[in-house]
Amino acid sequence: MTTHYFEHPLNEKTRIYLRVEALLSQLRLAAEFSDDMQHLVFYRSLFDLLEIFEQIQLKSELAKDIEKQRLTYRAWLNVDGVDQDMLQGILREVDGAHSKLMSAERFGQSLKEDRFLSAIRQRFNLPGGSCCFDLPALHHWLHLPSDRKQADAAQWLDSLMPLADALTLWLKLTRETGHFRNHTAQAGFYQSDADEANILRLEIPMQFGVYPMISGHKNRFAIKFIEFGSGQASTANVEFNLAVCS
Amino acid sequence: MTTHYFEHPLNEKTRIYLRVEALLSQLRLAAEFSDDMQHLVFYRSLFDLLEIFEQIQLKSELAKDIEKQRLTYRAWLNVDGVDQDMLQGILREVDGAHSKLMSAERFGQSLKEDRFLSAIRQRFNLPGGSCCFDLPALHHWLHLPSDRKQADAAQWLDSLMPLADALTLWLKLTRETGHFRNHTAQAGFYQSDADEANILRLEIPMQFGVYPMISGHKNRFAIKFIEFGSGQASTANVEFNLAVCS
Repeated sequence: MTTHYFEHPLNEKTRIYLRVEALLSQLRLAAEFSDDMQHLVFYRSLFDLLEIFEQIQLKSELAKDIEKQRLTYRAWLNVDGVDQDMLQGILREVDGAHSKLMSAERFGQSLKEDRFLSAIRQRFNLPGGSCCFDLPALHHWLHLPSDRKQADAAQWLDSLMPLADALTLWLKLTRETGHFRNHTAQAGFYQSDADEANILRLEIPMQFGVYPMISGHKNRFAIKFIEFGSGQASTANVEFNLAVCS
Repeated sequence: MTTHYFEHPLNEKTRIYLRVEALLSQLRLAAEFSDDMQHLVFYRSLFDLLEIFEQIQLKSELAKDIEKQRLTYRAWLNVDGVDQDMLQGILREVDGAHSKLMSAERFGQSLKEDRFLSAIRQRFNLPGGSCCFDLPALHHWLHLPSDRKQADAAQWLDSLMPLADALTLWLKLTRETGHFRNHTAQAGFYQSDADEANILRLEIPMQFGVYPMISGHKNRFAIKFIEFGSGQASTANVEFNLAVCS
């Protein structure tokens, strides 16, 4: 039986981080342009990212968070029983990501200045607006050879690498702080303390036919399981795995 | 050398028809859910369609247009030199599409009433909003077996068949009225009479490195070719094929 793997952010900043991670992953997958529709996912993800960059100061938020992780890991230097080689490795990664981040352009700056991308972006959100007559330049581009399209995509993605590297590292280190433990939601309900956590990770066996609705903030959270079939709150005792990551 | 195939609608109604045709085609292709991203295209296309259905009375527009085609073809009945068997075949198709259209629900009605789709639709347009925590029910659905997902999609698509059949027929008959002829845009510019036409179809050899910007309405149109590389108007003599379809 398969498992429904699920993540939930416990604050607005982490919510944005997870959305950006998902968008970057879609961008990378779609950049192969291996069928007639991947360009739709590619450009939509790219423009969604630009919209997020316009809404929040992602770069400075992320730099602060990476800095916080650096301080946490530095505190373990020369502590007995801590694998110092591993710790030095992590600190080198954190230092590298942080300095690349600090010397990077404002996220999305070169993408926003790209004439081709700007022309497409205006009309892309129209319902059904990716037709050739709405976006003639895009449709010319789609007829270009695959290697040319992939090269364009690679160049655009390159400008996002400092963001991608720092975000990936922050999320990896954050996820590693949590350990999966088995729990039972009595009559479909579970709550607990979060202790300044950022992300809840859940593994829910598909056999229960439920998905979680999670409310919470950094100190406390509640999980209510919903029956997919009926859309109603489940009254079953749902066994699941949970990792609380700070 | 490849050719850039291009269509341009000469009125607002045809513009919508071509967008709906593109969305229906995306829906069908994406309904295989054969990679991790096709569901993004599938749901986006479905919700774009619902938005179009809310904006215009597509069903009555299409019924009027199909009726107009029926009258046009009826006028050829018993006319010497017209292949009457072929004509009868077309008229049967037109009658069939028209009567299915008239007995169909309001386009998208059952989709709008679907609890699962409605829940997803609300958040789908958030930038990056297709994460599991934004759409937990969708992410449960994504973990269901392929045949279940394809069956759901088939059921949703079924409700759009009267629209798809009528639209496909109208566009097929409309496209068939035009015949490709070779033209030269002197210094990148071409204009001509349209004579109540609905769609311009162009075939542009990729070697010119240009795409068309078309302005026009039912009686007259102008095509200006733009250099993809520079974004400026082309001054080259561009040879292309054009079919004017009414």
